[in-house]
Amino acid sequence: MGKQDVFKPGLEGVIAAETRVSYLDTEAEEIVVKGYDLIELAEQKTYLDLVYLLIQNKLPDAMELKGIESALNNAYGLPSGIYTILSTLPQDTHPMDALRTGISALAGYDPELNDRSKAANQAKALRLIAQVPNIVANSYRILHQQKTILPDKQMSYSKNFLYMLTGNDPSEQETAVFDQTLMLYSEHEMPNSTFTARVIASTHSDIYGAFTGAAASLKGNLHGGANEAVMYMLLEGKTTSGFLKLIQQKLARKEKVMGFGHRVYMKKMDPRAALLKKALFTLSHKTGRQDLYEMCDAGETLMREEKGLYPNLDYYAAPVYYLLGIPIELYTPIFFAARSVGLGAHVIEQHADNRLFRPRVHYTGPRGLHP
Amino acid sequence: MGKQDVFKPGLEGVIAAETRVSYLDTEAEEIVVKGYDLIELAEQKTYLDLVYLLIQNKLPDAMELKGIESALNNAYGLPSGIYTILSTLPQDTHPMDALRTGISALAGYDPELNDRSKAANQAKALRLIAQVPNIVANSYRILHQQKTILPDKQMSYSKNFLYMLTGNDPSEQETAVFDQTLMLYSEHEMPNSTFTARVIASTHSDIYGAFTGAAASLKGNLHGGANEAVMYMLLEGKTTSGFLKLIQQKLARKEKVMGFGHRVYMKKMDPRAALLKKALFTLSHKTGRQDLYEMCDAGETLMREEKGLYPNLDYYAAPVYYLLGIPIELYTPIFFAARSVGLGAHVIEQHADNRLFRPRVHYTGPRGLHP
Ligand SMILES: CC(C)(COP(=O)(O)OP(=O)(O)OC[C@H]1O[C@@H](n2cnc3c(N)ncnc32)[C@H](O)[C@@H]1OP(=O)(O)O)[C@@H](O)C(=O)NCCC(=O)NCCS
Ligand SMILES: CC(C)(COP(=O)(O)OP(=O)(O)OC[C@H]1O[C@@H](n2cnc3c(N)ncnc32)[C@H](O)[C@@H]1OP(=O)(O)O)[C@@H](O)C(=O)NCCC(=O)NCCS
Repeated sequence: MGKQDVFKPGLEGVIAAETRVSYLDTEAEEIVVKGYDLIELAEQKTYLDLVYLLIQNKLPDAMELKGIESALNNAYGLPSGIYTILSTLPQDTHPMDALRTGISALAGYDPELNDRSKAANQAKALRLIAQVPNIVANSYRILHQQKTILPDKQMSYSKNFLYMLTGNDPSEQETAVFDQTLMLYSEHEMPNSTFTARVIASTHSDIYGAFTGAAASLKGNLHGGANEAVMYMLLEGKTTSGFLKLIQQKLARKEKVMGFGHRVYMKKMDPRAALLKKALFTLSHKTGRQDLYEMCDAGETLMREEKGLYPNLDYYAAPVYYLLGIPIELYTPIFFAARSVGLGAHVIEQHADNRLFRPRVHYTGPRGLHP
Repeated sequence: MGKQDVFKPGLEGVIAAETRVSYLDTEAEEIVVKGYDLIELAEQKTYLDLVYLLIQNKLPDAMELKGIESALNNAYGLPSGIYTILSTLPQDTHPMDALRTGISALAGYDPELNDRSKAANQAKALRLIAQVPNIVANSYRILHQQKTILPDKQMSYSKNFLYMLTGNDPSEQETAVFDQTLMLYSEHEMPNSTFTARVIASTHSDIYGAFTGAAASLKGNLHGGANEAVMYMLLEGKTTSGFLKLIQQKLARKEKVMGFGHRVYMKKMDPRAALLKKALFTLSHKTGRQDLYEMCDAGETLMREEKGLYPNLDYYAAPVYYLLGIPIELYTPIFFAARSVGLGAHVIEQHADNRLFRPRVHYTGPRGLHP
């Protein structure tokens, strides 16, 4: 068997692309994003710094940061047709499906749609980063018969996003925690949704198509859908002992416990989860919900001892979003919104140096049949 | 370097899946579909036989064929909300983007959406196969301010599809040629769009999401978008000498000539193209458009002599659709409609024995930066 005949289910360990965007260095336990350690960035910078870094390829100075902030502020709005389309969807449409439909429809409004140059892709990525939070928040509101909420240009990017999600004016601290979750979700090498976006872009399809496919991918509970699944588990468990019993039952039934495991870290703790665990600690004390922190911590211990599995980012993002008062169905759409910047960076890179993705198969079916 | 470190741009030659659906046997020059030779099937069977084969895993007997035909007939209709959404899209929305949005929105109407069992996926695949032609034809009509056209349940699947595309009652011969193109487009191992669908499905995302992503993929001109690009070239060339000059110019500018080349066949003729070349010969004589056949034939010779490249299916599908009176913008959406059955078969298979697609990268960017 030649090298190309070796079959790795799920392409585990297979190199799918060369990239300057990011890298999971599991030896050094570092999530490298454009040369920086994502955790350092998440501790010291803001989401918009990361947006600038990923799209413009350097950390911004104060002026540049102001520039990108006002560019995004001015692009928050959506064509009214998008609201009409969202209002037409059946009421029990999944929020990720509403988001996917909204992004897909938005393509027709972009005058630069077919321009795959770096400059046009950068501009389109920024427009999507500005508009996706609006689709996320208002598709949910429309499907729940609530009034749509207009973005507030006076608010910072993350504050406005959180405001649109909850309808409340967020505090400084809430905004800071939310901003940190966006940074942690921003980019993560080659997960399924990023891979989907690059595979699609490689046919010369446009960035809206790539984002649409990525939204479809992220919906699945083996990927972005895990964060809301974690929250439902915590609510079902109710108490620490209830939650631990629930996990035990799942393990006994050989079901996967959402929020644990990762193709790449698998036997190590996701450093993003470690950072959000700290945020949850603070937030749970502030809101008098230490019980939630304790449940999570106990679940983490149990899974490590029973299965040698560590929590991933989704495990701690879920209770953090819960304590920020965000409706559970919006957790995966928020993950998508935060990841838009990473998707944008990968589409830009794919179009700049493209080769069509077109793998082969091992055929295991019958041969030699005739009609 | 370990095996997993070998980087194959575009995953060329990399085995991405084990499958019982289909296989390109380049040695035997056979497109194997569920054990049969696709070309034999296309010569002896109808598109609905293939639908049955790919979804139910065997060729149907006469009763079974009747059964699937009436099941599809009864599922042609679309919820009125889908027409509303298509009517809301900006008028210059690309037909593939309209199709993508329509499929994405349709998800919310399917009561079995979240059921990934084989039976539910088969049922959903059949519903999509029934409904996609309706979205294809009517999204085009709506975007062109034409009245929508209702599917005619009395017509066979392919006749109704062609009727909805052109607004005319197709002859037996036209229907037969069109049906054959659908068979040739039905399934083709692991092209980009099929790969996209499987990658998305592997997160446990549903078949609508997988189809939405595949539509995004197929739009690109390195993939499905090639068939309409071929037709624009033929029209621009006008005559054989004009067409040959156009090809020469493209080659001189090192541009790709659409309709030629294929990752897998590359140095051999696509057997599907050979079959459609025959269909074009007949059709061009019947319609007095031998010139179109001659242009294509001359272009084929030129590309073989100059570049050693052979035509792919899109090269001959384009003039065939043109002579059938189908609007050029609909060629790629038709390809998608025909391929729905193959996509369905792959999603069923992926969900039945799943592993998340999650490859790795070679990082070539900077390291060790600090904010
Ligand atoms: C993320 C994930 C899909 C990566 O998994 P993968 O590389 O495909 O690995 P596999 O699913 O093949 O799992 C390998 C082994 O670990 C087990 N395992 C992995 N994740 C597990 C989990 N969350 N709970 C219980 N067992 C788990 C598997 O059952 C399997 O055990 P086996 O070898 O005895 O069959 C997987 O860990 C998972 O499904 N996690 C839960 C969903 C989730 O949190 N997703 C968000 C990821 S950011
Ligand atoms: C289908 C296709 C993407 C597969 O290509 P691939 O495996 O990625 O191969 P590459 O694009 O790397 O091409 C390999 C070489 O053949 C040349 N080539 C391939 N297809 C060509 C075409 N249609 N016209 C001119 N040159 C072509 C490339 O320029 C390249 O030459 P080089 O090595 O001198 O740079 C490619 O043949 C193509 O772009 N064809 C035109 C679009 C088309 O018809 N798509 C429908 C496919 S069903």
